[in-house]
Amino acid sequence: MFNNLTIVGVGLISGSFALLAKEKGFAKHVIGVSRTKASEQKALDLGIIDEALPLEEAVKKADLIYVAIPVDATIPVMKQIMDIVTDRQVVADAGSTKFALCRALEDHPMRNRFVATHPMWGTEYSGPEAAVRDAFAGRACVICEKEKSDPAAVKAMENIYRELGMHIVYMDPEPHDVHAAYVSHISHITSFALANTVLEKEREEDAIFELAGGGFESTVRLAKSSPAMWAPIFMQNRENVLDVLNEHISQLRKFKACLEKENMDYLYELMENANKIRRIIK
Amino acid sequence: MFNNLTIVGVGLISGSFALLAKEKGFAKHVIGVSRTKASEQKALDLGIIDEALPLEEAVKKADLIYVAIPVDATIPVMKQIMDIVTDRQVVADAGSTKFALCRALEDHPMRNRFVATHPMWGTEYSGPEAAVRDAFAGRACVICEKEKSDPAAVKAMENIYRELGMHIVYMDPEPHDVHAAYVSHISHITSFALANTVLEKEREEDAIFELAGGGFESTVRLAKSSPAMWAPIFMQNRENVLDVLNEHISQLRKFKACLEKENMDYLYELMENANKIRRIIK
Repeated sequence: MFNNLTIVGVGLISGSFALLAKEKGFAKHVIGVSRTKASEQKALDLGIIDEALPLEEAVKKADLIYVAIPVDATIPVMKQIMDIVTDRQVVADAGSTKFALCRALEDHPMRNRFVATHPMWGTEYSGPEAAVRDAFAGRACVICEKEKSDPAAVKAMENIYRELGMHIVYMDPEPHDVHAAYVSHISHITSFALANTVLEKEREEDAIFELAGGGFESTVRLAKSSPAMWAPIFMQNRENVLDVLNEHISQLRKFKACLEKENMDYLYELMENANKIRRIIK
Repeated sequence: MFNNLTIVGVGLISGSFALLAKEKGFAKHVIGVSRTKASEQKALDLGIIDEALPLEEAVKKADLIYVAIPVDATIPVMKQIMDIVTDRQVVADAGSTKFALCRALEDHPMRNRFVATHPMWGTEYSGPEAAVRDAFAGRACVICEKEKSDPAAVKAMENIYRELGMHIVYMDPEPHDVHAAYVSHISHITSFALANTVLEKEREEDAIFELAGGGFESTVRLAKSSPAMWAPIFMQNRENVLDVLNEHISQLRKFKACLEKENMDYLYELMENANKIRRIIK
């Protein structure tokens, strides 16, 4: 139980977290920190936050500080926070990359107040109006470098995430970023690229609109995601993302070769191999 | 209203069509034609068909013959059907490609008994057990070469599809195949290739299983689709699919170049352009 929860960023993740933390009794009072007055006001109007304050005041007043902003902004903002945080406070982030942040904070004297978390949940929408009460449930939450955080702080965060229906997975920041490239970042890149493909080639937009079925929607919906959130993720995790992207392009080239050479056997083989994903995604 | 409906193929599309046609009162008795005894039996057990017969008998007994089998098998099977069909019968197919079939049947003396349809609905599952009663609704159904079909036959098919919640779009076979490549076939290829990418690179399958969120599932779910159904579609529509696939690979290479050169501005530009898909996919 935290009396005061401060969310830094008032968007999809932090907003959903705040709504649920209050509903489930983990926080009494929610303070929001935002770069823009418009988001602050929207978060107030939507009942996501009770009060909006500048970063320093909001941090000082908080028991738990929960940071969910673009990952390039996270590092400098987190350093500011860690410089004023005390032994009675817990700081957590929800970023989709973990290596750069953990590295940036590893020598900070207050490192043990910080819990590096990545709840593996999201939608293609952003901003306070995207916050929902059915967030997080059924997904994994990664905690990195658990051993560098105060055990009670880790336990407090785990309790909240578990109460939101998540299961906890412990992982070092480096493997986390590798896995995140495979199971999340590449999906976003293919979706953005697929949207551009269709927009580029298909000039008769009405035809797309009229004909597009569920398959198209499902592969392209992530292309609606926020560039402000996702461009820094791709860039911060660029080596892993490039590895997966190169592999993906080479897999697509195999399909291309099958079609060019009318090689039905190999096409079948590629597709039957892909079917193995049934074992993983029910 | 058809007394006897014969479905050729007893799978996702034909099975859903049969269930709904009966429920909505468009057919009294459903006859199934299948290559395998196992599928026949399953379709009987599931109440999708009332009777299983060999093709010729099933066609002769039918008022409406609805063909939904892999598109490479459709052409020879459809020729067999058209050779025995009479003026009192209607034949329709549900295939995802239209050009090759319409071309194959264009000079058939009974061409006007045939209605070329493509209900733009599906799931990643196949076989009679995949048939569902909430199929088709809210999607487009393309009818090709309407003018070559008997007007009453077209009207009968339109009535059924409309009753199932679809809206009708008229299109020539050639543009149909182009559009289908953009809004359906490429989504399946990217999904198959993405599954292979992840299966190839990510050896620790438990990590995928544990971490995969909704975004991964949504971009990769089509990789569970049947190769027997989709390989012939890609091959029959290979020129259009290759066009779109080449464009898609070049769009992915743009993302790759951004990451390699750490060009954040161009990365933003690509992603903001992709966001325009919001106009099309709500």
